[in-house]
Amino acid sequence: MNDTFMMHDTPIGINATGTRVETDSMGKIKVPAQHYWGAQTQRSLVHFSIGRDIMPIELCRAYGIVKKAAALVNLADGRLPKWKADAIIRASDEVTEGKLDSEFPLFVWQTGSGTQTNMNANEVIANRAIQLLGGEIGSKKPVHPNDDVNMGQSSNDSFPTTMHVVTLLEIENTLVPQIEELIAAIRSKSDQWMDVVKIGRTHLQDAVPLTVGQEWSGWAQQLEDALDALKASIPGLAQLAAGGTAVGTGLNAPPGFSKAIAAKIAELTGKPFITAPNKFAALGGLDAMVRASAGLRGLAVALMKIANDMRWLGSGPRCGLGELHLPENEPGSSIMPGKVNPTQCEAMVMIATQVMGNDTAVAFAGAQGNLELNVMRPVIVANVLHAIRILADGCHNFRVFSVEGTTLDKKNLQKYIEDSVMLVTALSPAVGYDKAAAIAHRAMEKGETLREAALASGVDEETFNKYVDPKKMVGKGLAGA
Amino acid sequence: MNDTFMMHDTPIGINATGTRVETDSMGKIKVPAQHYWGAQTQRSLVHFSIGRDIMPIELCRAYGIVKKAAALVNLADGRLPKWKADAIIRASDEVTEGKLDSEFPLFVWQTGSGTQTNMNANEVIANRAIQLLGGEIGSKKPVHPNDDVNMGQSSNDSFPTTMHVVTLLEIENTLVPQIEELIAAIRSKSDQWMDVVKIGRTHLQDAVPLTVGQEWSGWAQQLEDALDALKASIPGLAQLAAGGTAVGTGLNAPPGFSKAIAAKIAELTGKPFITAPNKFAALGGLDAMVRASAGLRGLAVALMKIANDMRWLGSGPRCGLGELHLPENEPGSSIMPGKVNPTQCEAMVMIATQVMGNDTAVAFAGAQGNLELNVMRPVIVANVLHAIRILADGCHNFRVFSVEGTTLDKKNLQKYIEDSVMLVTALSPAVGYDKAAAIAHRAMEKGETLREAALASGVDEETFNKYVDPKKMVGKGLAGA
Amino acid sequence: MNDTFMMHDTPIGINATGTRVETDSMGKIKVPAQHYWGAQTQRSLVHFSIGRDIMPIELCRAYGIVKKAAALVNLADGRLPKWKADAIIRASDEVTEGKLDSEFPLFVWQTGSGTQTNMNANEVIANRAIQLLGGEIGSKKPVHPNDDVNMGQSSNDSFPTTMHVVTLLEIENTLVPQIEELIAAIRSKSDQWMDVVKIGRTHLQDAVPLTVGQEWSGWAQQLEDALDALKASIPGLAQLAAGGTAVGTGLNAPPGFSKAIAAKIAELTGKPFITAPNKFAALGGLDAMVRASAGLRGLAVALMKIANDMRWLGSGPRCGLGELHLPENEPGSSIMPGKVNPTQCEAMVMIATQVMGNDTAVAFAGAQGNLELNVMRPVIVANVLHAIRILADGCHNFRVFSVEGTTLDKKNLQKYIEDSVMLVTALSPAVGYDKAAAIAHRAMEKGETLREAALASGVDEETFNKYVDPKKMVGKGLAGA
Amino acid sequence: MNDTFMMHDTPIGINATGTRVETDSMGKIKVPAQHYWGAQTQRSLVHFSIGRDIMPIELCRAYGIVKKAAALVNLADGRLPKWKADAIIRASDEVTEGKLDSEFPLFVWQTGSGTQTNMNANEVIANRAIQLLGGEIGSKKPVHPNDDVNMGQSSNDSFPTTMHVVTLLEIENTLVPQIEELIAAIRSKSDQWMDVVKIGRTHLQDAVPLTVGQEWSGWAQQLEDALDALKASIPGLAQLAAGGTAVGTGLNAPPGFSKAIAAKIAELTGKPFITAPNKFAALGGLDAMVRASAGLRGLAVALMKIANDMRWLGSGPRCGLGELHLPENEPGSSIMPGKVNPTQCEAMVMIATQVMGNDTAVAFAGAQGNLELNVMRPVIVANVLHAIRILADGCHNFRVFSVEGTTLDKKNLQKYIEDSVMLVTALSPAVGYDKAAAIAHRAMEKGETLREAALASGVDEETFNKYVDPKKMVGKGLAGA
Repeated sequence: MNDTFMMHDTPIGINATGTRVETDSMGKIKVPAQHYWGAQTQRSLVHFSIGRDIMPIELCRAYGIVKKAAALVNLADGRLPKWKADAIIRASDEVTEGKLDSEFPLFVWQTGSGTQTNMNANEVIANRAIQLLGGEIGSKKPVHPNDDVNMGQSSNDSFPTTMHVVTLLEIENTLVPQIEELIAAIRSKSDQWMDVVKIGRTHLQDAVPLTVGQEWSGWAQQLEDALDALKASIPGLAQLAAGGTAVGTGLNAPPGFSKAIAAKIAELTGKPFITAPNKFAALGGLDAMVRASAGLRGLAVALMKIANDMRWLGSGPRCGLGELHLPENEPGSSIMPGKVNPTQCEAMVMIATQVMGNDTAVAFAGAQGNLELNVMRPVIVANVLHAIRILADGCHNFRVFSVEGTTLDKKNLQKYIEDSVMLVTALSPAVGYDKAAAIAHRAMEKGETLREAALASGVDEETFNKYVDPKKMVGKGLAGA
Repeated sequence: MNDTFMMHDTPIGINATGTRVETDSMGKIKVPAQHYWGAQTQRSLVHFSIGRDIMPIELCRAYGIVKKAAALVNLADGRLPKWKADAIIRASDEVTEGKLDSEFPLFVWQTGSGTQTNMNANEVIANRAIQLLGGEIGSKKPVHPNDDVNMGQSSNDSFPTTMHVVTLLEIENTLVPQIEELIAAIRSKSDQWMDVVKIGRTHLQDAVPLTVGQEWSGWAQQLEDALDALKASIPGLAQLAAGGTAVGTGLNAPPGFSKAIAAKIAELTGKPFITAPNKFAALGGLDAMVRASAGLRGLAVALMKIANDMRWLGSGPRCGLGELHLPENEPGSSIMPGKVNPTQCEAMVMIATQVMGNDTAVAFAGAQGNLELNVMRPVIVANVLHAIRILADGCHNFRVFSVEGTTLDKKNLQKYIEDSVMLVTALSPAVGYDKAAAIAHRAMEKGETLREAALASGVDEETFNKYVDPKKMVGKGLAGA
Repeated sequence: MNDTFMMHDTPIGINATGTRVETDSMGKIKVPAQHYWGAQTQRSLVHFSIGRDIMPIELCRAYGIVKKAAALVNLADGRLPKWKADAIIRASDEVTEGKLDSEFPLFVWQTGSGTQTNMNANEVIANRAIQLLGGEIGSKKPVHPNDDVNMGQSSNDSFPTTMHVVTLLEIENTLVPQIEELIAAIRSKSDQWMDVVKIGRTHLQDAVPLTVGQEWSGWAQQLEDALDALKASIPGLAQLAAGGTAVGTGLNAPPGFSKAIAAKIAELTGKPFITAPNKFAALGGLDAMVRASAGLRGLAVALMKIANDMRWLGSGPRCGLGELHLPENEPGSSIMPGKVNPTQCEAMVMIATQVMGNDTAVAFAGAQGNLELNVMRPVIVANVLHAIRILADGCHNFRVFSVEGTTLDKKNLQKYIEDSVMLVTALSPAVGYDKAAAIAHRAMEKGETLREAALASGVDEETFNKYVDPKKMVGKGLAGA
Repeated sequence: MNDTFMMHDTPIGINATGTRVETDSMGKIKVPAQHYWGAQTQRSLVHFSIGRDIMPIELCRAYGIVKKAAALVNLADGRLPKWKADAIIRASDEVTEGKLDSEFPLFVWQTGSGTQTNMNANEVIANRAIQLLGGEIGSKKPVHPNDDVNMGQSSNDSFPTTMHVVTLLEIENTLVPQIEELIAAIRSKSDQWMDVVKIGRTHLQDAVPLTVGQEWSGWAQQLEDALDALKASIPGLAQLAAGGTAVGTGLNAPPGFSKAIAAKIAELTGKPFITAPNKFAALGGLDAMVRASAGLRGLAVALMKIANDMRWLGSGPRCGLGELHLPENEPGSSIMPGKVNPTQCEAMVMIATQVMGNDTAVAFAGAQGNLELNVMRPVIVANVLHAIRILADGCHNFRVFSVEGTTLDKKNLQKYIEDSVMLVTALSPAVGYDKAAAIAHRAMEKGETLREAALASGVDEETFNKYVDPKKMVGKGLAGA
């Protein structure tokens, strides 16, 4: 190809109706004329019309980054002329910016290597680039989906590359900020209520007191630890398969391509992507994805505990624990004031459950690699991205519509402290174990408060007040004794 | 309400732009003027915009059946005037027919009771009925979403009722036919190849022969057994919670409502729905859904085995087992003829994996009921319906694009039979165990065929041919000795 | 073998120390002289010393049934002389009776076909039979582990046969009675408390009333349904692989062996065992085991809900729901009377969790069959039998130490009914919705009881008493309206 | 207690038969006279005789470390006199050394806090210390199980402390060395076979070549990455709950106890234990255990891939892939030489499956904490330690009995390279894409080798040899292009 083509600023869109003919190695096939995709995408649409699970659009957009990076590397090495690289880059950018979202119609349930989605990206970018360069869409000239857009790549390495790119980006850009804001909101409540004493409960049974702030600090800590663990999966995701091509040997990719494309992707995204040190592991396994999924599950485990605690502490208004008032966002019951259903907590518990189910599928799929390829890629990336999305959105709504608006029922909190006979523990040093136990027994049997039972048992009020001070029982901070 | 309204044949669609005001017990809220939904749907949209998981449309459509049945029962008992019931029924039918699909925008991640989707159905049906009756949309007159459309019901009983209705319908109408057709296709291949002898493999190692038809018959049997087990979950799904209302006691529902609505739903669907004998179990648990999910998982377990077998038996063309030729639906590799990737098998293996992940979420969620309600309903029904859908579509495509077009590589099949030394087993009665073993050893060591080794060891050709006849080694049928 | 040997009544036990030499096709190996097992068992001990998971002894004992049945069939057909069959039968009976338990030392983590445990059974029975017949242990004369004890069988069919036999027996004889007794105990409580009104809770929030008996009836119903579903897995387990031999064709087994051995096992056990109609499915899959596991999981799902309900309803004594008093079996806290930790509930919740984990492993393993064999048998049978055992024992202890001794805190139950403003629902028909709502609001705001708020709002006491009668709100039975 | 007692060197063992009476806050109970355990252990034995799952002995032994550390801290702070601390320390050491293993009879299925096992440790150490000091066993003098052995602790903090201690020790001391040795063994094979060219397989289909060493390097890399991820869970396990006491506030523990006991445990074990920064998270959650379980699962995922690859590559001998010869450890089939069943691979695949099942239970349990306590501790620690044990032993045996003895079938490897037409890829630059494709097609259609087809198509031998050189197609190393 010696010609040089000039790029025009043609807007996105194909002004055509009906069908046009596209070709691949199996021959001709008609595709809808208004779409950019080509023959292999069309064949996949026919053969894999399964369910309603479209390949996550974030993955398709991330393919724009990978194709752009490849074009830049191939341009720098002189394998692509500038005019062609520029057109590929512009089309790739449009993919990344979501301007071509409607051109990615393929289903999750396709070939396990993701080849069809790789070809979908190649075809869309090629045809859009052809359009920009004034060529005939579908002609593969002057931009060929395989020879040009896929240059130096194979589905076998480009799909896991894109999986890693999109997963890392989604975790860092979409999920982490929401988790951090949720932690901050819980931390803020914890600080605010650090001195509000409440009864503790272990085995669901009354126990010794702590403060509301301490209790909430535990939730924040769980999330922080879970977030740290999720972040620990990032370096694995940052390793890219690109340059391994078909089986990991890098056949048909130029020397240095691995490092160059990883560096370019790092540059384009601002994330520390590097080339995977072993391409056979990078193609045969998807273990970094399984580990990221475990990190997501860790968040789910903590979030389920927090949401369950909140809804139990908010249970009532008269016949539950009634320590928290959760915000009322929607009618609970038309006639029953105070019936605030903990719907955000319920949504969160369901999300956590879903994430665990997704994670089971991911781990199972991750274990099913054979020889040079794990062909469970689409199911893995779909489940991981789904988990990220519902966790991120769920944490946002849980924070905004539940955590931030939660208030305390200080009357109930105080009542429990007064009612509980568990504080007798504090009286023991003053009156001896046996008498303390007898006082507690009396309180339970006669239905008295601890104070009533103690005074009736001969403890003077001053002594009682001095010793049975729940504020003294809650320690000084978060780290225990 | 003494007035009588006349129903007009107003087409679906609200000719309005901007917003209108709807109200519920929390007050006023603006909703998009072109939509039928009301205040509670709108509030849910605000508070539960999580991910992209819309409540399965099949569930929303099935709500049309439940609302229609309720209206018919209430009409028959004189609680609804005919003109009002008729309008509700027509609107419900439109819901069931999918004509109002765009009016069900709510997310899976909402209140765990499904209340918001129940209200979505009530609001849409009420507003559409109001429109049909010439009233003002949003006015709740002359049809009230709660008092009229939800009459005798509570979200707590109508949502699990609808879950059961839609799950039973989807299993029987969508999934079972596809499984049956797949079984028939496999059975047909089994019959066709019942006499084609092939080498057996146990522990992946060469073993004694069987026929291709026998092998495929095992797959068909696995699916038949799995299908039977799935069907065994139907009677549980046929039991409906309707009539339990808020906590199972049936408060506010008229006497006899339980049985009447179940009978009506049975009549409308042609399925054997009955009222659940214990409404406390029906509201507090969702165990029939968990059991249906286990039935779906059973199919996944069998399908994974079948798809794995097919892709291994089709591996090659030169360096694999090479017994089957799977149809070539899309380019495997642009340059490599004969490289047919078993993509339909891969899709099926991924689907099976997904179904197992869904099932884990369903079981976990099913175990999380508390007291009078299990509030994990949306996550359960979403996962079950998703599994049904991808299994049904997956089985269809797997059958049409893989099973039906599969052919045998008889040359390879024959070659394995000739190559294997495992058939020496048959020679043992004629020449004695020790000599047979020696022949087998010789064949392995010298790289000879069994025939070569036997003849070289002094067995005459007639004896060899008489005894080493793989056709005699495959028995006579499917049930073993 | 023309000789006839006489059986002696030699007691179990080998009076020897050190080692003796046993042989198999790989040659000689020393085994501990005091044990009956032979060469292949010994080799497995060397190569598969993994963890502490011994093959479940119930499986090993059930092998006695299978080997006895085979001997009886072979005797009846004249393939075994009576003296030899008798010795094999006696040794098999001793295995079944648990008298040779110490002779089954092999680990779960062995060959996936279970061959080594089949050989363990063959070797032990052969050597014990040799001993009974006065032969030399280890000599394989006059009873050969393969030729005689394994006659007509292969590990490939005898191991899944034994899996089915032991699983069916364990479910029916060990688990079902415990579930039935637990149901009866819950049913008995339900009957006893059928008229005790209590507040209902949905979304954990106060709701309309029901009776304690109704609540418990829901638990019983859940267990009954789960038990029915478990029983539905029995017919699949009743189908036996025996007669399929190595790959399902029945090679080397005499004609009719399949049916005869199944009938004999049915006779010996009193259970409806039949031969599997398709031996290729019976060897290549283990789907009936997966379905049985799903049945066990169904019980776990219901039991987790019940145990969670019980411990929440028993929470307190002062700061929880406090409706139930669970029996105090062990010290909860040395100083705190009334602190009864719901430990039996906790054990049950952990058991349920374990059963779900086991079930995940079983389903995954069940999906991993390849071609003529699923080689995940030991992991499947170990997990299923483990689940049965802990469910059975757990239900026993949960019933005896928790359910049966549970009593009501009628004071708290009554208090909640009085405190709840949710009963305002009943006042609505008398005073109108608006006034009822206002009364409820007043009660919540002023911290009044519903009665106080109603009377203060002008409702006369007679009207209040007439309408707000929780007993009228709980319906008449279990099936709702 | 002013007396000083002298410690005697009394050997372990109680010379008594029948029963003795022990007491706790519920009163008297008879315990077997020859055992050291006391009343609470005995009560647990009565109430929690469920299944056969004994609390992992490693956990009980690790309790010796925790109790010793507590005694040392209490001694240093003057809360325990030296003579008493010394006796507790000696008894604790005996526990740690496994000398008192038979004194820990309790079941996993007990109270969810692990209280009973904590008391088991307290009782055994107290009675043994009493014996050493010449006191009367069961008298609680001069060493009291609660006041002295449990000083500064609660079950609520000491059990998760011990969980973390034992899990960290088992991972680092038991599992990591086995994984490292397995990696080294695989690495060694990889190095040895780095230049042996073989056919690659993607989608199970023939692909372009790589070397055996490259393939094995991928396995090693997967394990190294999984090991790194497992190690990343160690810092979480190193954080100890001790000092949080009942609810996390540290009530009843002396100031500084948290840090002091963590430092002491670090000193005793040589591991970097520190006190957890937030004790409410440490008691309410068990997230570090869930993360460790995810780390174990990561190993399982990689090991399943490796074991599956090995057994497929070793399949045959005549009708499979036949690239590897796995060592023959036990008879595969008595008559069929060369039938080596990949039993070690099968055991490994089953182990991996079990670990995934365990992990599901652990994650589910980890999500089930409520308020100040997660009472799913025993099921979590039992599953995690079980997974560690079978992974460690499994990797050992897999390495010794499978990996190390595996050899190549170089004839088959070479044959596949020659047979495959996939190498036509390399001819493309020389003869053009179209001609290359035609050659490949011809080879497939006529059943020719690629060489035969090329020469017959007019390619000269020199050209063919120059271009179609598989050694040039495998790249130069592990990182791709």
